[in-house]
This record gives sequence, structure tokens and C-alpha cells, in this order.
Amino acid sequence: MQWVKVLGGLVGAAALLGLGIILGHFAVPKGADAPSSSVFQDLDLEILETVMKQLDASKIRENLRELSKEPHLASSPRDEALVQLLLQRWRDPASGLDSAEAPKYEVLLSFPSREQPNRVTVVGPTGTVLFACRQSEQDLTGEQGGPDVVPPYAAYAPPGTPQGLLVYANRGTEEDFMTLRAQGIRLEGTIALTRYGGTGRGAKAINAAKHGVAGVLVYTDPADINDGQSSASETFPNSWRLPPSGVERGSYYEYFGDPLTPYLPANPSSFRLDPAAVSGFPPIPTQPIGFEDAKILLCNLQGTVAPAAWQGALGCDYRLGPGFRLNGDFPTDSQVNVSVHNRLELRNSSNVLGIIRGAVEPDRYVLYGNHRDSWVHGAVDPSSGTAVLLELSRVLGTLLKKGTWRPRRSIVFASWGAEEFGLIGSTEFTEEFFSKLQERTVAYINVDISVFANATLRAQGTPPVQSVIFSAAKQIRAPGSEDLSIYDNWIRYFNRSSPAYGLVPSLGSLGAGSDYAPFIHFLGISSMDIAYTYDRSKTSARIYPTYHTAFDTFGYVDKFVDPGFGSHQAVARTAGSVLLRLSDSLFLPLNVSDYGENLRSFLQAAQQNLEVLLEQHSISLGPLVTAVEKFERAATALVQHVSELRKDTLDPLQVRMLNDQLMLLERTFLNPRAFPEERYYSHVLWAPRTGSVATFPGLANACSRAMNTSPGSEAWAEVRRQLSILVVALEGAAATLRPVADL
Amino acid sequence: MQWVKVLGGLVGAAALLGLGIILGHFAVPKGADAPSSSVFQDLDLEILETVMKQLDASKIRENLRELSKEPHLASSPRDEALVQLLLQRWRDPASGLDSAEAPKYEVLLSFPSREQPNRVTVVGPTGTVLFACRQSEQDLTGEQGGPDVVPPYAAYAPPGTPQGLLVYANRGTEEDFMTLRAQGIRLEGTIALTRYGGTGRGAKAINAAKHGVAGVLVYTDPADINDGQSSASETFPNSWRLPPSGVERGSYYEYFGDPLTPYLPANPSSFRLDPAAVSGFPPIPTQPIGFEDAKILLCNLQGTVAPAAWQGALGCDYRLGPGFRLNGDFPTDSQVNVSVHNRLELRNSSNVLGIIRGAVEPDRYVLYGNHRDSWVHGAVDPSSGTAVLLELSRVLGTLLKKGTWRPRRSIVFASWGAEEFGLIGSTEFTEEFFSKLQERTVAYINVDISVFANATLRAQGTPPVQSVIFSAAKQIRAPGSEDLSIYDNWIRYFNRSSPAYGLVPSLGSLGAGSDYAPFIHFLGISSMDIAYTYDRSKTSARIYPTYHTAFDTFGYVDKFVDPGFGSHQAVARTAGSVLLRLSDSLFLPLNVSDYGENLRSFLQAAQQNLEVLLEQHSISLGPLVTAVEKFERAATALVQHVSELRKDTLDPLQVRMLNDQLMLLERTFLNPRAFPEERYYSHVLWAPRTGSVATFPGLANACSRAMNTSPGSEAWAEVRRQLSILVVALEGAAATLRPVADL
Repeated sequence: MQWVKVLGGLVGAAALLGLGIILGHFAVPKGADAPSSSVFQDLDLEILETVMKQLDASKIRENLRELSKEPHLASSPRDEALVQLLLQRWRDPASGLDSAEAPKYEVLLSFPSREQPNRVTVVGPTGTVLFACRQSEQDLTGEQGGPDVVPPYAAYAPPGTPQGLLVYANRGTEEDFMTLRAQGIRLEGTIALTRYGGTGRGAKAINAAKHGVAGVLVYTDPADINDGQSSASETFPNSWRLPPSGVERGSYYEYFGDPLTPYLPANPSSFRLDPAAVSGFPPIPTQPIGFEDAKILLCNLQGTVAPAAWQGALGCDYRLGPGFRLNGDFPTDSQVNVSVHNRLELRNSSNVLGIIRGAVEPDRYVLYGNHRDSWVHGAVDPSSGTAVLLELSRVLGTLLKKGTWRPRRSIVFASWGAEEFGLIGSTEFTEEFFSKLQERTVAYINVDISVFANATLRAQGTPPVQSVIFSAAKQIRAPGSEDLSIYDNWIRYFNRSSPAYGLVPSLGSLGAGSDYAPFIHFLGISSMDIAYTYDRSKTSARIYPTYHTAFDTFGYVDKFVDPGFGSHQAVARTAGSVLLRLSDSLFLPLNVSDYGENLRSFLQAAQQNLEVLLEQHSISLGPLVTAVEKFERAATALVQHVSELRKDTLDPLQVRMLNDQLMLLERTFLNPRAFPEERYYSHVLWAPRTGSVATFPGLANACSRAMNTSPGSEAWAEVRRQLSILVVALEGAAATLRPVADL
Repeated sequence: MQWVKVLGGLVGAAALLGLGIILGHFAVPKGADAPSSSVFQDLDLEILETVMKQLDASKIRENLRELSKEPHLASSPRDEALVQLLLQRWRDPASGLDSAEAPKYEVLLSFPSREQPNRVTVVGPTGTVLFACRQSEQDLTGEQGGPDVVPPYAAYAPPGTPQGLLVYANRGTEEDFMTLRAQGIRLEGTIALTRYGGTGRGAKAINAAKHGVAGVLVYTDPADINDGQSSASETFPNSWRLPPSGVERGSYYEYFGDPLTPYLPANPSSFRLDPAAVSGFPPIPTQPIGFEDAKILLCNLQGTVAPAAWQGALGCDYRLGPGFRLNGDFPTDSQVNVSVHNRLELRNSSNVLGIIRGAVEPDRYVLYGNHRDSWVHGAVDPSSGTAVLLELSRVLGTLLKKGTWRPRRSIVFASWGAEEFGLIGSTEFTEEFFSKLQERTVAYINVDISVFANATLRAQGTPPVQSVIFSAAKQIRAPGSEDLSIYDNWIRYFNRSSPAYGLVPSLGSLGAGSDYAPFIHFLGISSMDIAYTYDRSKTSARIYPTYHTAFDTFGYVDKFVDPGFGSHQAVARTAGSVLLRLSDSLFLPLNVSDYGENLRSFLQAAQQNLEVLLEQHSISLGPLVTAVEKFERAATALVQHVSELRKDTLDPLQVRMLNDQLMLLERTFLNPRAFPEERYYSHVLWAPRTGSVATFPGLANACSRAMNTSPGSEAWAEVRRQLSILVVALEGAAATLRPVADL
């Protein structure tokens, strides 16, 4: 095993370590097991190399086998057994952490009824059931069965047994339903068959209900997930593709966090909303089905042929309905019955938190997390991430217990509960400790699915984490290659032209797809998500094919996703290197000037796409231009200042002050009053954006809403307000980066 | 001059200074003018004593003479001239600060018209003007006249010329108007005569308008301000009492901050509300008058004799009206006409900010401020505070420029603009720099009116500042006494029994009466207000008698309020000592465990007054009890830990970490989503509280609203929500105080 050695970064570590020893009399003994620490303790490249070497692919494979050997739906007995497994690992005397706890929240989950399974049937004119969709997936390899496999369902969809004529509604967007209406199709009382993708799960039912639709079915089209392939011979277990009976489960709740306790931790005594008053649940019964069943329904529809963009790969012309065609499998006036018997239940869900106390700055936290709960066996989602988490904590824990190493800052490992129901464990955690976390957290590293596929690294994050991910990726060998670094491989798949650096790998932005969401959007903590992923020239699959199905098993990963576990190891090394750099570097490796490129590109998009419109309403982008320039100047000056510091005259408080500026920059973009209707979204740069202009979300969204209103409207006032909020945030960010005694 | 030497506090300063010198090689040179600094720099008691000695009463007197020699209404030329005076002082090469700036905001103020003066008249049945109130106060000593004296007016009251029968409405509370209604008095179209006190200024007009009242008059009753005395011979210039022509001006806006830019700094480019859409302005024309004129109106009223509690000291029976009595000065159907011609104007208003850069932790700010603008000459309000501010900055600036001293942390002196219109300058400042200020500010010290009267110290603040004020007050001689400390004098006037300390002076809580409001309520920064004040056994005056009138002049202060300026000096020393202790102490002198007493007393009030009611609705105070206990334990342990630290093994980062816990405790009580309808109020312990139970405001207010609603009401849900918000805040506060590597 080779580790590409490219020494980089700001600091001459050897020189500083020397200084650290000289100044060692400042150290406060932290216990017999700790090496002596110094206020100048810096990243130790030897330790980093040791960690990289010790991260073991076969151990990750063993972790994954154990983690995914049983289904571990949130709050199930097996989920709780994994809590114990994590606690045991993190409390291990030889390889554990300083401490580990498993606090519980009492959260609202949704489950199908065991007694009354959900059922989708075709009912003939006389009431006879002519056809019934499968109620569970086929057990193809002996890995997909058993009593703990939860049947496919749409979590949080309400119970009910609507029955009506079937229509095909493509992806269930508002536009899709308008298209059906424009065709003269009466939607009231119908059952809408939709396919995954294009919009959030819950949105399909919300859009449908607005048009009077009585029930919604959702399936995964082979065109979207299998590059068109659908036969048994082309799919799992003969390839990584989704077999015909596979059904994507998922949460259909529109927001995140425990639905009953927005902004409050779901402790037993916490105030809870009346479930009937919760907004964001699907309003009508909804049920997911496999494409095998969808084909029977869809290929029997009558009516106009659907638009080309609505067609899929089921091997027939998709028609709109309503109702079935003449000479098909069913009488034309047969209806579809959707019987949903889901129940809401208050359940205990645990997070597991494991801590390595920092030697020098224990009040600075680097968080590293992933969720633990799965829909079924969840080998890829989320156990591929948890397998990496456990290997990383084993390696670090071993160094810790041996007394070889203790990080400068505290490291907090987290195994979140109930993510699949809406990032619940992580959100409750941020709600419980919001002050402390905001004040002290350096960054949050999320590794959920660690390997979607084994082609390349994929990273999402806010600009300050770009540089540390790049540093890590440059020093690690790409799996399956002798001389290519992860970085060099990555840049071949995802890249962009950076004004400052030329061609670099492109970092994705953070939505709300995993547990980083409450950290970045609610608390303004610099966050990232790291994984290995597809070669997009080889597949256009919406996501890995067995996502949220019973086919996401250990055997699937071992055979198809990452044989040999080299990609898992690559992710463990990359995320581990990022973690060590953040926890151990004397100066935080957060490059604040990289935010400048992002602001500049948002500004340019606004200038190119919105400026003419804004000028028509006498709104100037001038103050925004000035604010971006101020930010750029302050960020560049700060980075320059840090790079010029004479290492031999450093003052430990000076280092801390500069690090505070770097750490807290992300917080300056937070304004809890910016988007009062967007629950948890307070980050003025990364809140959800509608429309196609890649610019500041508040401005973009307000402009979309104002566009067709009169000049004096409330909507135009909101455009002005959003622009001011943004300017104040950017000016405040610049102020945070300027020399600290300037006001 | 003697300074009571009571060495106290946590730290053996001499020992630490020695250590500081040994470790001096860590110091980073901060420029030729600075003494060498050390990361262990601590409060220097010699410097403190020097500062105490150099604070000069006669210089404060000269400052006051200069500051109050002309009226300096917000944004007036004289206000701007004072901005220049402050800049000149703070930029003085021999006694100035490191830097000083005067940033401007563009804010909405309200002024009477010069061309059309406001006028209050009695109009006879034929339309003849039978009587006109004074339009300006009498110039009794040559100090009260001149073109720059703004005539009395109610700032932000709308223009209009209502005319109607007069009624007497006591203090203009909702209850007062209900009392009139209960008497069968028809209020529609009337003019309501009210007296100051009992409720906010603007509330009188808001309450009146709800009952159809067309215009409001407000006067100051001699019973409320002059201990009943009202004749010319008993009042100024023959005593400190308010003369008959004196009129209290004031802002009638219900909120604070620039009315057009809530939550945004009032920069020229900022989004502004349409003034017509602003809520919180008085809805009907309103005008203040003197008691000389009020007497003529009130003593001529007909109708029922007002309740005993409504009677005052004008020497007649107060009757309710409507209209005038038979055989009085006016025909019974005469009406009162209120002609108001106030105008809203966007004006530039400056803050002046002067900075002393910290030697060791320049990114920690101790803020010390007062407003600059007055209604007329404003000798007491606010110039008595500004005179102290300038003397304090002179003494510190001189030490700084001589190179004898530089504080550990940065000191920011502020002279706020447009406070009288609603704390505008300070609020805009907090809106502009909210992130930075929240992250870095140790405390805010406000000295607005420094001397109300010369009997005793009076301090308001949150619990963590109690100990530092006590430490300061114990070491300074009370004015006019040889051996009594300010503390010993203080405890004779205001005291309480503390479970931890026995009898101690009682600290008042912070409302929104001066510029500390945005710091504590909006940003959660530990704040205080310090002044000298009355012997309450000698006067029951609502406030010093010439408050906001033309009689608040230098001569008034020099002769009546504080001859010799000993109380001014006492306040300068107290506030100066607090400032130095906060800026220079190695460990912040914020005693977090003192919050425990406050929480415990709020809890006990809730248990005694609300628990039965809550239990009837199955709401338990148990989680709150637990949270308070957790807080107490964590706070006590932290204070204990700090006191036990071995000074010879201190690590500078350890000090910083502990100080961050102390500094940021106040921030943990902030929840911007707790009271969405209370603009700027986010502090869950100090938001406005209605009702008489001295407990947690969110709980108290929610209970008041829920009291008479049915068990399943929204109001009872809000009680539960408020209780949870509180529990989370207290648990979060405890978490912040616990050892930093515990989660």
C-alpha cells in the first residue's frame, strides 16, 4: 500500500513541534494516558501517515457485514442492538474513545401495519380484485427476506383506501398535473401513478391533492435507475441493477427534524404539536410499488399518449388515462384501489456520540457523523458510511489508547438515529445544543453513503472546506491506481475553472439530503459530505439502483458496488485526513478566501440575469457589488496575514483569535429572520433556491415571486428586503475577517 | 482624596504579573507606544488606583458645561458639533484613544413644524379661541430660551387637528378607558387629557384610539413629579422641582430602533418600510402640555369626580368630563382643539466610536456607551453620562498615550445618536455588526443619566455583572463620606437577602429604557446601567423633575442635582473600575453562578403562583426544576474550578476557554424564535413580562393569555411551548458551563 506523499499546507510541522517541546511547560497534564501537549501542537504528518496506513479495507468489509446483516429500521430492536455495538466499540479499552453515550429522543415515526398490510389492487366493475401488486420484494438471493424487512411504504402518508380511475402523472410536479388538466383530464377522485425523481417524494402527493387526486402511486422507472434495463437477466443478482420487484421506500415528510417538535429537541417533556396540525405530511394515501407492477398498470392505460419526456423504459407507450384501454388486461372501467394502513408512532431513537477530548483546545469540536438507521439491510445506505466511521474511530482510538496521539481539538463521532425519516437524530441534537455547537464547532464532516460507485471521489461542502478536502485528496492514492492521487482522479470526473487556481475538482453544494443539513442550514457550521461515486459517462442512474430497497445488502456491495472495498478505504482515508487536519492543525485549514469565488459567481449570475429587471424597479446591485468586494479584500488580507506570520514569535492567543475568525465566518451568513417560512433554513447563501439562476437564494426566490407583480407590490418590497439582508450579511462577514480591533 | 482599598477578586495580581514578565517572550510587539504585553496580563491594581485618583470632578463639571451649553437634539447642527468634539477628544495625541470614527445612519425622526407650531386651545361654541396653552416653556433663568429649543411635542404622533369635548383619562391605560366607559361616558370624538406615568407614552394614544378618542393630551402632574408641590416659589429656580410651564417631551414610538428598518442597519441603501405601514406609531394626534395649562383644563371639567387614585396635586377635584363645568372658565359646550403638525424626516444621525486596542485579546470587546442626543440642553439626560464618559476616556487615553497601560482586551467607547427617538443609534449598530458583536463582546456598560440625584448608587444588570459592580463599589469612597464605601452606602438604600451572600445591594433588571436594550435583548450580551440616584424616603418623584424639559440645564445640575459633582465622580469611578476589571482581568469577573439565584427565584415564583393552575392542565414544572438544578450544579462547579486553578501552571488557552464559557453564558439564553411578535426581544429571561408574578416572562405571559381559555386552546399549547423553550435554554446554559469536552 502506498500513500502519495505530497507535503503541503501552511505549516512547517517539524519546526513547530520543536517549539512545542521547548514550550512544553505550559502544558496541563490531561491524564496519564495522554502525551504531553503544547499550545503549539500542530498536525503531525507521521501520525497522519500512520492513520492512512492503518485504515484497513478488510476491516471496513467486516464492519459492513456486521452492520448490514439484519434490517435495522430506525428504533427497531436491531437498530438498538447496533447502538450497543457502537457503544461497545467506542468504549473498548484498546481501541475506544474517551467516552461514548447514547442519548435518546422520543420522535414521531411512521410504520405500515403488520396486521393490515398496505395493498394496491385493480378492482373490476363488479368489485372483484383483478390484480394485486406485490406486498414485498422477491427474495432473490436469500438476503432479501425475513420478518424484519419492512414492506415498501411511504412513511408519513396517511391511512385511507381511495379507489378511482388511474391516470399517469409523470413525476407528479405541479406542471405535470397542469399538463393533464390541459388535456381535459378530470383528476378529481383519480389515482395518480407517478415515478420517482424530479421533485421530492412528499411533493408528489401534495401537488396531486391540489387537483383532487384521491391517491398516489410512485414507482421507479428503469429509464431513471437502470439505464433502461429491466429484465430479470439484466438486473440483480445478475448485475447491480434494480430487479423488477424492487421498491424504493422513503420519508414523504416535506421538512426535516421530528415533525412534532420543530426547533425543540424531542425530549420526553418537550412540547409537541398535535399530529393533526403538522404541515408537511402527504395529504392523501400514497404507496410506492415496483416497476414490475407499475408496468402492468401503466401499459394497460388508455387515453392520449403521454409527451415524449414522460415516456420511460417499461416497453410500452405510456398513456395518460384515465382508466384502462380496451382489450387490455382489465375491463376499461376498472379502478385502482390504494389501501394504506400506515400508523404514526412515538418511538425512542438513539444517537450515539463518541468523544476524543482535545489536548489543547478541548472546546473546539470537529464533528464527524453518519446515520445508523436503514430502510432494510441498508448495506450502502447508510452502513457503507458507518463501516468507514467505525474503522476510522478504531484507528484513532487505538492511537489514543496507546498514548501516541491526542488531537489538538476535540473530535465528536456521531451515529445519528432516524435519519431516513427526515434527519431526525441530527436535527434534534442541533436543537438541543444549538448555543454550544454554534460557539464551538469547527466543522461537520458527514459520510453517509460512503460508496455509491467506485469511479471517483465526490464532495459537497461550503467553500471554506474546499482546501482541506483538496489537501487530503492530493495525498492519497486513488484505488486501483499505482500513481494517481484521489485528487488527480477526481478532477477527471468533476471539474471547474477557478479564477484563483485554474482547473480544480468541483465541490457540490449542500442541499438537505443527509445529516449535514441542520448543521449548515440551522447552525451555520461549515459542513461537507464525502463519498465515492459513479462514472457518469457509464450510467445515468438517478442514484445507485437498489437505493432504499431490500436489495441493498452486503452481497450487493461486495459483488457489485465495491469489490475489494478499495473505494471504501479511499473514502476512509480522505475523510480521516480531513478530520485530522481539522482537529490537529495549529491554524484551521479553512480557506475563507475561497468563499470569495462563490460570492463573485453568485454576483455575476445576478448581474447577468436579474440586473435589468431590478433596474426597471429602481433596485441597484451596487451595494451588493461593494459588499462582495469588501469581503474579497478582507478574506485575501486575512489569508495573507496568516501565511506571513513568523512562526517563531507566535502567541497562542493570536493563533486562537485567527482560528476564531476562520471558524466563525460561516456563522456570519446566518440570519434566523431571513426566511421565516423556510423551517431551519437561515443561511443566506445556501437556503433552497427556486428557478434556474445560480445566485443568492433570497434574491432569486424573491425576484421569481415579484416578477409578474406590480411595481409597488409586497413582493417587490421583499426583493429589496432580501437584498438588504444579503448586503448586511456580507458586510458582517467582511467585518469578521478584518483585523479584530477594527470595528 | 481617599480610595477605600479592599483588595479582592479571584486573582493574586502580583504573582501573576511576575509570571507575565517571565513569559514575556510570547508577547507580540504591538507598536512602539505599547508596553510589552503578556498572555497572562492581569488587572493591575496600581493602574486601577491611578485611574480612580485621576477621575476629576471638576473636569466632569467642565465637560458638562460644554456638552449642555446648547440644545443638541438628535441630528441637529449642535448634535453634529458634539460629534466633532468627541472625535477631537478621542483623537487627541496626548489623551485620545487608538482610533475614533463617526459612522452615520439615515434614520426616520419626527419633528414639530417651525412654520405651523403645534397648538392646544379651548374653542367656544361659536368657534372663538377662549384659551391657548403655552407653545414653549418659560425662560426663567436665561438658560431655557433660544431658537434651538424644540417646542414640546410628542415625537412620531401624527399630524391632525382633532377637536372635541375634553375627558380626563388618568394615565391612559386600557383599564382607565374602561373605567370611563363604565361611567357611561361616550369617548368617541373626545380629547383625552392624560398624565404621564403608569404606561409607555405611545400606549396612551393607542389605548385611546381603540375607544374612538380623537386626540390625546399628556401632562406631568405635580403629585407624580414634584411630591405635590406646584407653585412658582416651590419650583425651579427655587428648588429642583418642575416649574408650571415645564413639559416632558419624548418619543411616542412603541418599539425601538429606526422605525423603517427593523432588524436592518439604516444604511442609505437599506430596505425601508413605507412609513404608512409602520406599526407602533401613535394612531391619533397627541401633544404634551405643562401642568400650568393642564390645571386650567382639568380644574374646569364637569362630570363625576374621578376615583381617588386618579386625583393629583393641581389643587382641585379632578372630574371626568366630558366637557366643562357650569360657572367655570369656559362655556360648558366648549371644545378642546389639538393641532399637531409634526413631520417625519429622514435624517443623518451619527454614532461616535472610540477604540483602545487590547494588548492580549484584541478580539474581546468591552463596550461602554451613552447616547449623545438630548431633547433640549439635556444636562442630566444624557450629558451627565457623556461628561463622565469623556472624563473616563481622557484618563485612560492619557495612560495609553504615555505608554503606561494598554488593556488586555479591546475597549470600545460609544456615543450613540438619536437615543431619544427610540435607542436608534445603538440599535442600528447592533443590527449592522450582530455576528461580530455576539461572538466577541464581553459586556456592555451603559451610563446614560449618570446622576439622577446624589443619594446612592443604583445599578441595573443581568446577574453575571453583579459581582464586578460589587467589587468596584466596595473599593470607592461614597461621595461626601470619609469612611463609607459606595457599596456600604448603596446597601442602605437598595438591598435584598441573597441565599448565597446574605444582605447585598439589589441590582435592578434591565428594561428598555436606554441603549443597553439592543445589547441584552437582541444580542444576549451581559449588560448593565450605572447611575447615582434618589433617596426614596425623600421623594416619590417619577423621575428627576426637569426630565426632557427645557429646565434640564447645566445650572440646574450644578445647583440642585450634584453640587460639587461628587456623585458624577463616584459614577465615573464605579463605571471606570467595572470597565477596567472587565477589560484587564485575566479571568473575566463575571460570576455565572449568580444567575442561579435569579433562576431559583423565578422558579419559586412559578411554583408558588402558577403550579396549581399548570397542574390543572397536566403541565408539570418538573423538567424546569431539573433544568434549574442542572444549571446551579454546572455554574457552581465552574466557579469552583476557576478558583482552584493553580496559577503557576496556567495555560493561556485554558484561560481563554474558561473566559469564553463565562462570556457566552448570556448568549445561551437567546432564542430568536421564542417571541416572534416581540421585536428584538430574544432573551428568554428578560423579555417583557406582563402580570405581577416575577417569573420567566415567556411562561408568565403565556399563562396570562391561557388562563381563561379552554384546556385544548392554542393558548395552552403556547404555555407548553414556552415551558419547553425555557427548559432547552436552561439545559443549554448548563451544557455551556460544564467541562468543555463533555457533550
